[in-house]
Amino acid sequence: MVLAIGLVGLGQIAQKQHLPAIAASLDFELVAAASHDGGAGAVPVYRDHRAMLAAHPEIAAVIICTPPRARREVAIDALMAGKHVMLEKPPAVTLGEFAHIAAVAARHQRVLHATWHSQYNAAVMRMRDLLAGQEIAAMHMDWKENFLDFHPGQRWVWEAGGFGVFDMAINGLSVMSAIFDPVPFVLAAELRVPDNVAMPVAAEVQFGLGDDTAPITASFDWDWVGPPKREVTVTTKSGSVLKLSESGRRLSVDGNLLVDGERDEYAKIYCHFATLVQTGASTVDSVPLQLVADILLQGKTIHIGPVRLSNPA
Amino acid sequence: MVLAIGLVGLGQIAQKQHLPAIAASLDFELVAAASHDGGAGAVPVYRDHRAMLAAHPEIAAVIICTPPRARREVAIDALMAGKHVMLEKPPAVTLGEFAHIAAVAARHQRVLHATWHSQYNAAVMRMRDLLAGQEIAAMHMDWKENFLDFHPGQRWVWEAGGFGVFDMAINGLSVMSAIFDPVPFVLAAELRVPDNVAMPVAAEVQFGLGDDTAPITASFDWDWVGPPKREVTVTTKSGSVLKLSESGRRLSVDGNLLVDGERDEYAKIYCHFATLVQTGASTVDSVPLQLVADILLQGKTIHIGPVRLSNPA
Repeated sequence: MVLAIGLVGLGQIAQKQHLPAIAASLDFELVAAASHDGGAGAVPVYRDHRAMLAAHPEIAAVIICTPPRARREVAIDALMAGKHVMLEKPPAVTLGEFAHIAAVAARHQRVLHATWHSQYNAAVMRMRDLLAGQEIAAMHMDWKENFLDFHPGQRWVWEAGGFGVFDMAINGLSVMSAIFDPVPFVLAAELRVPDNVAMPVAAEVQFGLGDDTAPITASFDWDWVGPPKREVTVTTKSGSVLKLSESGRRLSVDGNLLVDGERDEYAKIYCHFATLVQTGASTVDSVPLQLVADILLQGKTIHIGPVRLSNPA
Repeated sequence: MVLAIGLVGLGQIAQKQHLPAIAASLDFELVAAASHDGGAGAVPVYRDHRAMLAAHPEIAAVIICTPPRARREVAIDALMAGKHVMLEKPPAVTLGEFAHIAAVAARHQRVLHATWHSQYNAAVMRMRDLLAGQEIAAMHMDWKENFLDFHPGQRWVWEAGGFGVFDMAINGLSVMSAIFDPVPFVLAAELRVPDNVAMPVAAEVQFGLGDDTAPITASFDWDWVGPPKREVTVTTKSGSVLKLSESGRRLSVDGNLLVDGERDEYAKIYCHFATLVQTGASTVDSVPLQLVADILLQGKTIHIGPVRLSNPA
């Protein structure tokens, strides 16, 4: 059975990932979209999600790709209209908001699929399996890219509640939370906040696993010059070096390439959503968002000069 | 059976609340303390918790009244030495750290009592009972006091991870989380950060319950001039006005005083701890800390002029 989808928010992530993934899926069919701007191919686009839901009672599931601040209202309206809901990451601006959405989904017996796309790489799951039962000697994560290469002119990320560098760094944190059990917790953080925006552009974070001896660190930078660097390197106490690179797509162990995966995160997200709808199960993982909250609770702010927000005309 | 207690941290809250409460308790006896400074009456005081634990194997429970940054290490050492642990609020700097402490307590089958002292007022529990099943038309909370009246010269609260105004506002948030089910979630926040410290001195917060129509607001101020104002006023849709005042000690309904409680929060905390140790149950409530995290995730920072950190000599 093919499920009818309504997509809300037609920005970059919808255009680059969701629309192609839906088009390629055997489980879903896009029947309508809602957006203030942007098109979705042949399907009708409504000015807001309420108009979309009213015009298309056949919609069974709503995909929410708006900025985080708008997600809760759309999610609640969709759930209360009896639709299943898939959320882009982060699922909400706050932990309380996310818990509220999850509670409404449970009350209305609808599926909530709160996705963390970077976790869907085959190399991430393989690394988790290899680390199971291993003691950790050290970890370092770099999650670095240039904001202007991926989000030129996008303003909401720099406003309060817009996450700043954590809009992308939360992908690295979602990978870290997937490969470690237990998940390291935040010990200290330095946040670099440019004087022309409200949120950090870069952060250095130290984590602990409880014994406080293994150095577990992360460097996040959204003003990085050069090609994106999205890597996690773990050294085990037995001496192995596991390196996850290319956002979790490749895994090497002691220099030998073990996994060189496809770029198929979103295909897997939709495949998983179909299974969740069939079984009635939800995915409600707040750990990556909690790690960002903990970084802000601990973080020492360092004020720096302005960051460039758009490319020269 | 009387349980032997070791107390770690002999600052203001230990001197004003814990030592008198332990002295008055029939369930506990103080046998030693650890502190960089400060005395504890007749019992020996050690320079750190490890020396205290080594010298007093008879200690059955450790009370932790250090600043939040030091709590995790003391708690873990105490739990791993087989002691039960009581934590002053907030239980840790971050949610992940708190979860780690709770996991270690569970693994070692020791009781963890993470206290939120303001919740122990009789008027708070009465207000919760009165609000059960009621629809909320409005809420406003004021939690305001002058920092210099209660913490003159105390520096750690103003550093990263020191909570700033939320060191005291978290008491109001703990009351709010106790009287409402479900707990309101953070919609927006403004944080006033003085230019001579790292943390906010005041905050305005808007909360929601899901329908977004009831105004649910809080004003927190640590630079308040005048006597402390620690109040929560709730108007129900049936027209009742419930007012909790004096940190949750008094409750009036429609202007009639209903509860005028004792100042016995800490007596009740210790009484509850004795019961928890007997039954083997822990209290691990992270909601007030999560509300602070959510305020920081949403909060818009407004930079203001310097705050005075100590009284004139």
